[in-house]
Amino acid sequence: MTEFELIAKLTKDLPPSPQVIAGPGDDCAILDLGLPDRWLLFKTDAIVEQVHFLPDADPVQIGHKALARPLSDIAAMGGIPTSAVVTLGLPPHPSTARIEAVYQGLRALADRTSVHLVGGETVTNPGGLLLSVALLGWVEKNRCVRRQGAQPNDAIFVTGELGGSIGGHHLSFEPRLRESRWLTEHFPVHAMIDVSDGLAGDLRHLLTASALGAELRADSLPIRRFARAEAASGRSAKPATLAALTDGEDYELLFTVSPSDAVRLQDGFRQAFPEVPIRCIGRITAAPGLRLRDKNGVHTFHAHGYDHLAQP
Amino acid sequence: MTEFELIAKLTKDLPPSPQVIAGPGDDCAILDLGLPDRWLLFKTDAIVEQVHFLPDADPVQIGHKALARPLSDIAAMGGIPTSAVVTLGLPPHPSTARIEAVYQGLRALADRTSVHLVGGETVTNPGGLLLSVALLGWVEKNRCVRRQGAQPNDAIFVTGELGGSIGGHHLSFEPRLRESRWLTEHFPVHAMIDVSDGLAGDLRHLLTASALGAELRADSLPIRRFARAEAASGRSAKPATLAALTDGEDYELLFTVSPSDAVRLQDGFRQAFPEVPIRCIGRITAAPGLRLRDKNGVHTFHAHGYDHLAQP
Repeated sequence: MTEFELIAKLTKDLPPSPQVIAGPGDDCAILDLGLPDRWLLFKTDAIVEQVHFLPDADPVQIGHKALARPLSDIAAMGGIPTSAVVTLGLPPHPSTARIEAVYQGLRALADRTSVHLVGGETVTNPGGLLLSVALLGWVEKNRCVRRQGAQPNDAIFVTGELGGSIGGHHLSFEPRLRESRWLTEHFPVHAMIDVSDGLAGDLRHLLTASALGAELRADSLPIRRFARAEAASGRSAKPATLAALTDGEDYELLFTVSPSDAVRLQDGFRQAFPEVPIRCIGRITAAPGLRLRDKNGVHTFHAHGYDHLAQP
Repeated sequence: MTEFELIAKLTKDLPPSPQVIAGPGDDCAILDLGLPDRWLLFKTDAIVEQVHFLPDADPVQIGHKALARPLSDIAAMGGIPTSAVVTLGLPPHPSTARIEAVYQGLRALADRTSVHLVGGETVTNPGGLLLSVALLGWVEKNRCVRRQGAQPNDAIFVTGELGGSIGGHHLSFEPRLRESRWLTEHFPVHAMIDVSDGLAGDLRHLLTASALGAELRADSLPIRRFARAEAASGRSAKPATLAALTDGEDYELLFTVSPSDAVRLQDGFRQAFPEVPIRCIGRITAAPGLRLRDKNGVHTFHAHGYDHLAQP
């Protein structure tokens, strides 16, 4: 059973509620608290030693990553984060210096993104360090972007670079909060998701939500230098294109807009964020499925992204 | 360094914000979202295998406990819970039947308390099963009860029974949500906290928040039968009174009201909740410190409650 199947099974038949605009199945839950123009966004995320970081990882970066991941989910809905509560699972004999460094990384990112740390607790976790962060944010009802909403012929964009995140990006990435707000301020973004489980896997979630398909151009994929180097050197058996499609932990924005907005969007984004790559990587199709066009033609792409249960 | 010192250290100097009515240091964070009459309550809590439950514990009860604990914190503020997100940390080769039973316990309590499970995710946790629950609720501004606010001569009440929770109560307790709402509907409750770290420890938090002291009557403490039996049989070296003061995991409401409300409150509560014990166990004093009156006189009480870091 994969993570997605498990979550689907465990949360099925939840009673509907007028307060719950979106429950499990999007990047964040969307709650209606009775405010006229805004919804509340609610997300939890955890990272675990040996799974999401190695014991010798820089503890400042561990703290950074713990908050940056759910921030990326808030960004993927077009939202603004506001406050977080943190559970720190500590191995039996924790080093105070390490814990302080973890919180330092967490605090620095919280301060930079105007997130209030409004609660924290520690528990003993015999298996190693664990950080669980629950995050609140809000979004204007008319700027909230979900996984569903893509249209046939939409242009598919992705920010940043993909693949080879293990080379360091997964510990140091900056969640695309400003970029996301810029996008929804200037364009009707049809659908958006953050690329955390691999481009192919997360694009499939977006396509499934709208019962559509997509065709990607292999030569448009923004492949990270580290992924290219690993493939070229033979250190990784995975071709660089496949790494970009399936490695995971990219934490980039994947979104679709009307094809008539595509050129203006790309130009405007590059002017607003000259240091952030942005690429149109393909288009949405009415025919379901995920296809990849390369120099040899068009192939149906069957492999999927990183799955936490299948590949811990 | 104890848990409380650590949290205090890590969250000190957080910038103040008009949206944050209470940050770390109360049972829940209190957030002002701009609703005229209500505040939002926000809490996270985690339980871990080998620490909060044993590997052979009934998985339905494990799921129950994971949600019941933060619900108890919402109750301690006088609030109404609304929605939760759950992170399930799974050992490397989890049993699907066990996970389903965990969620069954969680779902049953969520349904009974009208809590919407709006998100879930699984992560691998090499050390064993872990459940982290982040919970939202709300409370009317004029019914929100905090740790601070006790007055000299206030009567100190506690619901339920104390001590010996390890005998089973810690896995099966019902959070005192209805009782808490009844209390704040009928009486001005001055200060309240949930007894999770032991009566003495949690009462100290309440006293510290108001810079006051307390005198408890040893013969008024509602000691659980299991704690008495353990002490009487010699299986526990801890006298039953000490168990009631320090064992932890009682998840009862500890609160103070004006002495003039004490009798009416006790009578009304017993009528409203005939199956729930309630006891006046002492009074708030202007002199700081915690004192215990027994048949030999009045003693200053120095031991404190369960501390997660010191006694994992």
